[in-house]
Amino acid sequence: MQVSSCPSGRQAPFTVARRALQCRAVAAPAATAATAGKSTEQVRVAVLGASGYTGEEVVRLLSLHPTFKVTALTGDRQAGKEFSEVFPHLITATDVPSLCKIDDVKWDGVDAVFCCLPHATTQVVVKDLPQHIKVVDLSADFRLRDVNSYAEWYGGEHKAVELQKEVVYGLTELHREAVKKARVVANPGCYPTSVQLPLVPLIEAGLILTEDIIIDAKSGISGAGRSAKQNLLYSEATEGINAYGVTKHRHMPEIEQGLEDAAGKPVRISFTPHLMPMTRGMESSCYVKMAPGITVADLRTCLEAKYKDEPFVHLLAPGSTHHVRGSNYNLINVFEDRIPGRAIVISVIDNLVKGASGQAIQNMNLLFGLPEETALLQQALFP
Amino acid sequence: MQVSSCPSGRQAPFTVARRALQCRAVAAPAATAATAGKSTEQVRVAVLGASGYTGEEVVRLLSLHPTFKVTALTGDRQAGKEFSEVFPHLITATDVPSLCKIDDVKWDGVDAVFCCLPHATTQVVVKDLPQHIKVVDLSADFRLRDVNSYAEWYGGEHKAVELQKEVVYGLTELHREAVKKARVVANPGCYPTSVQLPLVPLIEAGLILTEDIIIDAKSGISGAGRSAKQNLLYSEATEGINAYGVTKHRHMPEIEQGLEDAAGKPVRISFTPHLMPMTRGMESSCYVKMAPGITVADLRTCLEAKYKDEPFVHLLAPGSTHHVRGSNYNLINVFEDRIPGRAIVISVIDNLVKGASGQAIQNMNLLFGLPEETALLQQALFP
Amino acid sequence: MQVSSCPSGRQAPFTVARRALQCRAVAAPAATAATAGKSTEQVRVAVLGASGYTGEEVVRLLSLHPTFKVTALTGDRQAGKEFSEVFPHLITATDVPSLCKIDDVKWDGVDAVFCCLPHATTQVVVKDLPQHIKVVDLSADFRLRDVNSYAEWYGGEHKAVELQKEVVYGLTELHREAVKKARVVANPGCYPTSVQLPLVPLIEAGLILTEDIIIDAKSGISGAGRSAKQNLLYSEATEGINAYGVTKHRHMPEIEQGLEDAAGKPVRISFTPHLMPMTRGMESSCYVKMAPGITVADLRTCLEAKYKDEPFVHLLAPGSTHHVRGSNYNLINVFEDRIPGRAIVISVIDNLVKGASGQAIQNMNLLFGLPEETALLQQALFP
Amino acid sequence: MQVSSCPSGRQAPFTVARRALQCRAVAAPAATAATAGKSTEQVRVAVLGASGYTGEEVVRLLSLHPTFKVTALTGDRQAGKEFSEVFPHLITATDVPSLCKIDDVKWDGVDAVFCCLPHATTQVVVKDLPQHIKVVDLSADFRLRDVNSYAEWYGGEHKAVELQKEVVYGLTELHREAVKKARVVANPGCYPTSVQLPLVPLIEAGLILTEDIIIDAKSGISGAGRSAKQNLLYSEATEGINAYGVTKHRHMPEIEQGLEDAAGKPVRISFTPHLMPMTRGMESSCYVKMAPGITVADLRTCLEAKYKDEPFVHLLAPGSTHHVRGSNYNLINVFEDRIPGRAIVISVIDNLVKGASGQAIQNMNLLFGLPEETALLQQALFP
Repeated sequence: MQVSSCPSGRQAPFTVARRALQCRAVAAPAATAATAGKSTEQVRVAVLGASGYTGEEVVRLLSLHPTFKVTALTGDRQAGKEFSEVFPHLITATDVPSLCKIDDVKWDGVDAVFCCLPHATTQVVVKDLPQHIKVVDLSADFRLRDVNSYAEWYGGEHKAVELQKEVVYGLTELHREAVKKARVVANPGCYPTSVQLPLVPLIEAGLILTEDIIIDAKSGISGAGRSAKQNLLYSEATEGINAYGVTKHRHMPEIEQGLEDAAGKPVRISFTPHLMPMTRGMESSCYVKMAPGITVADLRTCLEAKYKDEPFVHLLAPGSTHHVRGSNYNLINVFEDRIPGRAIVISVIDNLVKGASGQAIQNMNLLFGLPEETALLQQALFP
Repeated sequence: MQVSSCPSGRQAPFTVARRALQCRAVAAPAATAATAGKSTEQVRVAVLGASGYTGEEVVRLLSLHPTFKVTALTGDRQAGKEFSEVFPHLITATDVPSLCKIDDVKWDGVDAVFCCLPHATTQVVVKDLPQHIKVVDLSADFRLRDVNSYAEWYGGEHKAVELQKEVVYGLTELHREAVKKARVVANPGCYPTSVQLPLVPLIEAGLILTEDIIIDAKSGISGAGRSAKQNLLYSEATEGINAYGVTKHRHMPEIEQGLEDAAGKPVRISFTPHLMPMTRGMESSCYVKMAPGITVADLRTCLEAKYKDEPFVHLLAPGSTHHVRGSNYNLINVFEDRIPGRAIVISVIDNLVKGASGQAIQNMNLLFGLPEETALLQQALFP
Repeated sequence: MQVSSCPSGRQAPFTVARRALQCRAVAAPAATAATAGKSTEQVRVAVLGASGYTGEEVVRLLSLHPTFKVTALTGDRQAGKEFSEVFPHLITATDVPSLCKIDDVKWDGVDAVFCCLPHATTQVVVKDLPQHIKVVDLSADFRLRDVNSYAEWYGGEHKAVELQKEVVYGLTELHREAVKKARVVANPGCYPTSVQLPLVPLIEAGLILTEDIIIDAKSGISGAGRSAKQNLLYSEATEGINAYGVTKHRHMPEIEQGLEDAAGKPVRISFTPHLMPMTRGMESSCYVKMAPGITVADLRTCLEAKYKDEPFVHLLAPGSTHHVRGSNYNLINVFEDRIPGRAIVISVIDNLVKGASGQAIQNMNLLFGLPEETALLQQALFP
Repeated sequence: MQVSSCPSGRQAPFTVARRALQCRAVAAPAATAATAGKSTEQVRVAVLGASGYTGEEVVRLLSLHPTFKVTALTGDRQAGKEFSEVFPHLITATDVPSLCKIDDVKWDGVDAVFCCLPHATTQVVVKDLPQHIKVVDLSADFRLRDVNSYAEWYGGEHKAVELQKEVVYGLTELHREAVKKARVVANPGCYPTSVQLPLVPLIEAGLILTEDIIIDAKSGISGAGRSAKQNLLYSEATEGINAYGVTKHRHMPEIEQGLEDAAGKPVRISFTPHLMPMTRGMESSCYVKMAPGITVADLRTCLEAKYKDEPFVHLLAPGSTHHVRGSNYNLINVFEDRIPGRAIVISVIDNLVKGASGQAIQNMNLLFGLPEETALLQQALFP
């Protein structure tokens, strides 16, 4: 039985033959992977929409995974190409299949799907996947429980309303137990990840008010994807900053959903994202009012208690995106504001890792009963 | 009489002889410059502390000035060097004197001083300058009217308390008439410039409340100066962002002073600056509450009325620091927030130009009765 | 008579009314501009293909020009838009017309054309312009005297063979007298400018051999233009370097043409351009063999003699692109190589200024009898 | 018995307690590590000079190593600090000891030393290490076999002349067998690694001439180290390129030594490094003459044969430093030049990984009989 779940691709010209040397044990045939959950056996993974940054990032991170083996990569417009034609840096990765069309994937040879397709497209694809496949969806399609809210913010009726009901929102540290039992996980957006991790515990504990939460967020440019757009050109984007999507960013209802769950009541936030000249990284500066009598020390104690056993969430002064680049970590800090009764909570992640593909693998590890941090303990690339 | 007010410097080796070609008319002898104010005659300018970025920027911008002629550049540790040894890009500038010690300047050959010295040092130097010299001070030393506030934030007693009383705070668009009559102008800080230009008119008009003003600001790295510090190294600063000086930045009392003047009562703000990977540029995102019944349209109308005849302040959607790089412009925009009753005001400047040396020249132009925009109409360098 | 040579455009919404304040004297009616050459009267300028970087750069630089007045901007796909919609930073420029279609330009109201159209298109457009108009063409269409060479490198027959014969190649410092008498000037490419300025005098003087000239060049990304391409995205282009177009770059025959003219015999060069993460700037490192008995001191003496009276060419150690950013200067240095008999010549320019729009204005100044450096003496923007 | 070989450091304030979760099995006591070479047991590692970039990079990469355990980190001026005070991003790393003075290291608890000290200092330190310790030295001190050459290029007599004789130069792919038997390995410089990997096999095979080898190299700024210097400041280094150390760079004799070994005769090269605005990455463009009758296809065949079984050396078109960022790979390509008989060889590495710390670990793996690629198969971080 072939390892690849895609038809065979052609060999890239002028390249040295791929090596047998690997860090992962690929000796065992993939045929037995249906019994996944036992970490000694392989899980056969398909990445749908692999020609974008989140798809690439799943492949990059899985290159160090001992159990998950990428056996299919889809990219409809790039079908037939070697993956290294689309992402030349991965010419050094071993055993990566070439790209195929999604319709050509043999689903019975697939145990797990990372779905990196655009929103709207995703609903239909995920809905039609065989039930034996576990799915982490990186699109926005299943993040909003309220399908009417989806329709309002994403401009179209939801096409998988029934499936939506069983999907689990996979902000791992906050919904771990539900994720473990899920078949389909909606992977959170990058901004919502960076904001909910610090704010949800504080709201649940009643330490901060839900009125007048103001979030000034800054994202690296990779968050805008790989499509060629003029405003994302190097010469246009380097050496400057600008706000965008002011009051209209689609991550806003997702953040509000999470904060409302924590508060048990409606929440309206102020959220202003900025695009800045860095490839990776996201910083959310959250300006909040504390409940009467509460101090910054209370906030810090709460977060330390909440996250002290978590592998990926740390408290650190002062919190720079430099310190999470390429890693799955979230660094949080809390400061007393000059205005009495106010606090400033600063949270940083790598938008492509903890904000997307890293957290997706974190969730998929849980779906297959593996240690959550498998393949995710790379330290940040600094400098 | 010699043109230079500094002792003659040595010639840099291996360089082509300086050219006679110039855009400015340097025909008239500088001897008559004491009658400055008549734009056909030269004003002899000394730049004190010229080895830093704000000093350099004054020299760069004055290379296109028809009246101001740089005749002395001081830099105590670099004295004796050609200016182009310190700033190689200015080897192409004509007639720039070499650096000398401040004690070696012949003050009777100087009509105007741009003081770019560090704070604390500045007070004593400016206090001792001859009275015939007009001064724009780019340090923080004379910005705070309250010398006790100065002592608190800058860590030392003020040493020129009498002079402080006559100094005019030179946020040109807001204090133009006072600047025209001044002898010594305290040039505003970069953050205070970017914040006060949009907020002061709104507060004066009673359109926004002074409670809960939250300012999330982002600065280019040149704002941290030219001293070699590890955190400013390219490898440490590129491709990432971090907050710094949270609630403790020295520009905070300067901003509050301006807003208090506008409000006629004490104001406490939340101010969080971020250091980000760009050389020049500053963006202040200001989150404010509107007065009851006031809308964003009212805010916009107020600002348009205030600034419609100003050469350097424009309303523009959405406001990117890319669009002011190297120029003296301030671009402002106003957005309705998602939280009812709130507005978002975004203001961008080049921290070294409108935030420092450009505004200093704007003020000096006024001190000498010249058109305010002289030498300052260079468009932004984009891309 | 109206000043604009384009039909009137609509006003951008929400922007402050344009100011009357200007550094240039626009008092005189443009009607008399046909008598150009007298610098006190206006020259009416059309920029064709103004939505790209070279077009923008012409407009930016002309904002400080006392004689040239932009009265038409064309951009067929953007016709009808305010220029500041296409280049928001120029919302601060006064009196810039909106974009129109090239077919809508009223040519009798135009004295001078900067042609910034793509190659191939350009030939036909320039050929059909009325004879009273002076033209500086920034495309590659008229740079190669040999139309067969053009056909080979640019993939199509030349469509203006007769016009080609009268066009003057405008590397200003080397062909100044011919430019003065021309009607149509072919503005040199950026790489050819950076290479010919140092090498042509050395070859003409017989100081270096024409065999084994090896040029390793590095360009800022703006040189690739403003079209949205994946490899030019910030996230793809930042923080890395790569060679491109190895042995196949179209500037190669242009460089060889210039060196052959200097040598009086055929020349084959090695030329490898690199794309690197900076917006502006170009560095050409030229590795050359010296003629027997010649030393690096001879090379330096030759270049100093050649360029000592030039406003824009300087010898400087060591030569960084940082020092020419945004300016029209060319900095050159010469080093002795470790291999005996060899020298290293390093030349830096801003690819958009001396490598394109700045030199175009330099040439246009000559065409109208103006001082060559008019509007071009801005110093480099550093830092 | 304590795991750390350094005295205990204080705990950083306000940080969550370190986690037990680890990817590496640290269960076994380090006490048995003297029997290193058995990969199931730990090797206790000291990193000397750990406060610089190469030291940090060793620590970062070893966080994924199953056998090597960092038990001592020295930094004389930072002694007593938590490592995460010096490198905040490594607050997320588990079990990293705090910094101590080199004199406080207990050498009998150390099996392996990565020496990241400055040159000159290194000789004395390494000479005095106990003989049971295996050493990879990342400084330049033992790279030049000829101690006179060392004295000439590094400005001082060599102080460990005897030790020099037994040290093995560790360009792994070229000297693997010697490395395996060594006790002290001199880890190659970054430029010499990038140049020798492609050129040595071509010279050994007689395919290229050793005359007129011209190397134009470009390095990321991290190569200049972590000391605060003005020319390395973000604002000075971003958005520009410059050559430096022309004909005088200390890596030149190291490159010549390697090429001379391959050629069996003296070799003089032309070598010009450039500093460019990227943190990591190095590109060497090598311009070479082929032997009579040899073609580019011959060069390519030679390199493919040489490296086809190597895990870290790949042939790839065209070769961008983006594609090796953060990884231990070397990508090489070969192009036919326009000048007949010439070829262009382009080689890219990450200067801090294959050019320093990654190759050091590769060598240390060999010294302890481990698979060479252990902990080094992270793919490049792109985008």
